[in-house]
Amino acid sequence: MRIALDAMGGDFGAAPNVEAAVQAAREFGYEIALVGQQELLRPLLNQFNTAGLQLPIVHASEVIEMHEHPSQAVKARKHSSMVIGVQMVRNGDADAFVTMGNTGGALAASLLYLGRLKGIHRACLATAFPTIKGPVLLCDLGANTDCRPEWLAQFALMGSIYAERVMHIRNPRVALLSNGEEETKGNQAVQEAHQLLKRAPINFVGNVQGYDLPAGAADVFVADGFVGNVLLKFAEGMKSFLEDALRTAFTSSIPAKLGALLAKDAIKQTLRQKLDYEEVGGAVLLGVDGVVIVGHGRSKARAIKSAIRRAAEAVERGVLDAIEQGLQAMPRSALELDHTTRG
Amino acid sequence: MRIALDAMGGDFGAAPNVEAAVQAAREFGYEIALVGQQELLRPLLNQFNTAGLQLPIVHASEVIEMHEHPSQAVKARKHSSMVIGVQMVRNGDADAFVTMGNTGGALAASLLYLGRLKGIHRACLATAFPTIKGPVLLCDLGANTDCRPEWLAQFALMGSIYAERVMHIRNPRVALLSNGEEETKGNQAVQEAHQLLKRAPINFVGNVQGYDLPAGAADVFVADGFVGNVLLKFAEGMKSFLEDALRTAFTSSIPAKLGALLAKDAIKQTLRQKLDYEEVGGAVLLGVDGVVIVGHGRSKARAIKSAIRRAAEAVERGVLDAIEQGLQAMPRSALELDHTTRG
Repeated sequence: MRIALDAMGGDFGAAPNVEAAVQAAREFGYEIALVGQQELLRPLLNQFNTAGLQLPIVHASEVIEMHEHPSQAVKARKHSSMVIGVQMVRNGDADAFVTMGNTGGALAASLLYLGRLKGIHRACLATAFPTIKGPVLLCDLGANTDCRPEWLAQFALMGSIYAERVMHIRNPRVALLSNGEEETKGNQAVQEAHQLLKRAPINFVGNVQGYDLPAGAADVFVADGFVGNVLLKFAEGMKSFLEDALRTAFTSSIPAKLGALLAKDAIKQTLRQKLDYEEVGGAVLLGVDGVVIVGHGRSKARAIKSAIRRAAEAVERGVLDAIEQGLQAMPRSALELDHTTRG
Repeated sequence: MRIALDAMGGDFGAAPNVEAAVQAAREFGYEIALVGQQELLRPLLNQFNTAGLQLPIVHASEVIEMHEHPSQAVKARKHSSMVIGVQMVRNGDADAFVTMGNTGGALAASLLYLGRLKGIHRACLATAFPTIKGPVLLCDLGANTDCRPEWLAQFALMGSIYAERVMHIRNPRVALLSNGEEETKGNQAVQEAHQLLKRAPINFVGNVQGYDLPAGAADVFVADGFVGNVLLKFAEGMKSFLEDALRTAFTSSIPAKLGALLAKDAIKQTLRQKLDYEEVGGAVLLGVDGVVIVGHGRSKARAIKSAIRRAAEAVERGVLDAIEQGLQAMPRSALELDHTTRG
C-alpha cells in the first residue's frame, strides 16, 4: 500500500503531516510518500526514528494555500504538492492521495488529472457525520450546489457502497434529506431523485427530515452540495453554541460551578468523541477515478493518520471497482428519468 | 385588539389554548375570540374566572388535524376552526389569527382566503431562531421549496421589516445562507438573489455560512423553504443529540455523576432558555394580507400566549403596511433580474 500524502496541506503546515506519516508507516506498514518541499520536510522527518519505515519524500516546490481559488490555483501551480500528489495516483505511483489542504483544490485537481469514473455524472464529497447512533455518511458536502436528480441518485449509490465497504455498515440504509417524509415532499430534484432511487438495487429508505440526521435514522444521507455544506457548517456552529451555553450554565450558581469542576473532564471528552464534526476521518471524493481523501484543515496528527487509514481501506476494499460495478447493476429506470411513467 | 385564536389547534387540544387566551386577555387586555367547538370550549372556559375579560367563543364544528394534507383539508373543511379563524381576519372581525395547528393548513387557508399582499410573489414562513447572541429571524421555513431569486429577495425585505418592527432590532443585518461568503458562492438562486439584494434599501450583509447562524452573525437569515425546513428540524434533532451526549457524560464516572446532581438544574434551565427551537413565539406568515402566526404543535399555554403577543405586536407596529411600502421603495433593479447588467 503506497499512499501519497500532501505534506504541506492543512492549517498547521508540514509538522503534523510528517508525524502522522511516521505513525501510519509504523502502525500499518504502509509506504507513505511525503509530497512537498524537501528542504522543509527532510529536517522534520529526521526528528523521528524512521528505521525500517518507507517514507520517501517526493519534492513539490509549490503550495496551494487554503484561501486560494481552487481551480485557478490548481491550474497555476503545477508543481504544488496537491497537483503532484494527485498525479502520482494517476500515474500509478500511489494507490491513494490524502490531503488536509484546500478542499476545492483537491476536487479541482482530481477532476482535472484523474477524471470521473465511467458513467458518473458528477463527483461528490462525503464525510462521516456524528449522530446519536454513531457516524453515518453525509454527501454531498459542497462539490455540486445545483444538482440534477440523476446526480443525487448516483451520490446515493456511491455513498451506499462506501458506507458498506469502508465504514463496515451492512446493507446501509440510504435516505434523501427532505422537508417531509412523503415522496411528494422535497424540492423538484429531490422528488425526482426519490423516483429513481425507488428502482435502485440499494436499501433506499425514502425521504427523511432534518431531525433524522442527528438521530442517525439512516446510514447514508444524501443532499445536494449546497444543503450538505450549510448543514455541516451549521452543525459545527451548533457545537460552539452548545459549549457556550454549557459555560453559561456552569457559572450560573455556586452548586453549578462545583458541579462543573467535577464533571468537566467527562463532558469535554464526550463532546469531543460524540460531536466531532471536523475530524472523523476526513471527506472522501466519490466518483473520481482514484481514491482521494480530504481532511479538515485543522487536523492534527491523529486525524491525519485516521484519514490515511480510511484511504488505504478504500483501496483494499476496492471501492472504485465496486462503484463501477454498482453503476452497471443499476436498472436504466434508476439512472434516468422517464417522464412518461414518473410519479 | 381582537385576536382570533384557533382553540382546537395543537397536539394538546383545546385546554392550553383556552388557558393562554384567559391569560392574554387578562395580561394584555386583548379580546381573544376562541374559535372552535363551543360544547368543548364552554366548560373549559368556565373553569377560569373570566369576569371583565373579552373571551367570546366563535363556533367552528370541524377540526383540521395535524396529519392532514393541508390544502385538501382546508378546501374540504370549511367549518374548521382554521378556516373560520382566517376568515375572521379577512372579514375584519379579527385583527390577527393565531394557531398551533397544521402549519401547511394555516398557509393554505391564508393564501386561499387572505391572498398575498400587493406585489408579493410568494408568502414565506419565518421564525425567531435561537443563537449565541439571542434570537434571530430565519425564513423561509418550508412554504416554498424551489425558490426564484426574486422570491428570496422579497423574503429578505419582509424579514427585515418584521425583525425591525416586531423583534425590535434596529437596522437588522440581513444575510443569505450560502456555502461560501463570496458573492459567486451559492446555488444559482442564491447567487442571483445576492445581486438583487445588493441594490435593495435594506442592510444586506451578503452571504453567510452555516456556522454563522448559531453564531448569530446576522439578524435575518434567508434561505429557500427546503433549506430552512431541513435546518430548523436539524437544529431540533441536534438539541436531542446534545442532551443525550450530556446524559452519557454525566453517568460516565462517579465525579461526573456528583457534578450532574449539582449542575443539573442550571443546565436544564440554560438549554431550555437558549436552545428553544420550538417555542420562541411561533412562526409568522409573511406576505399574506393579514397577520397570521403559527405556533409549534407542542406549545403549552406560555408559548401560545407569547404567539398571541407577537401577533398583536405585528398588528400594532403595522407590519403589513410596512411591507407594502417597503416594496414600493425597492428600486426595480432589486426586484427583478436584468440579465444584461448582472454580475
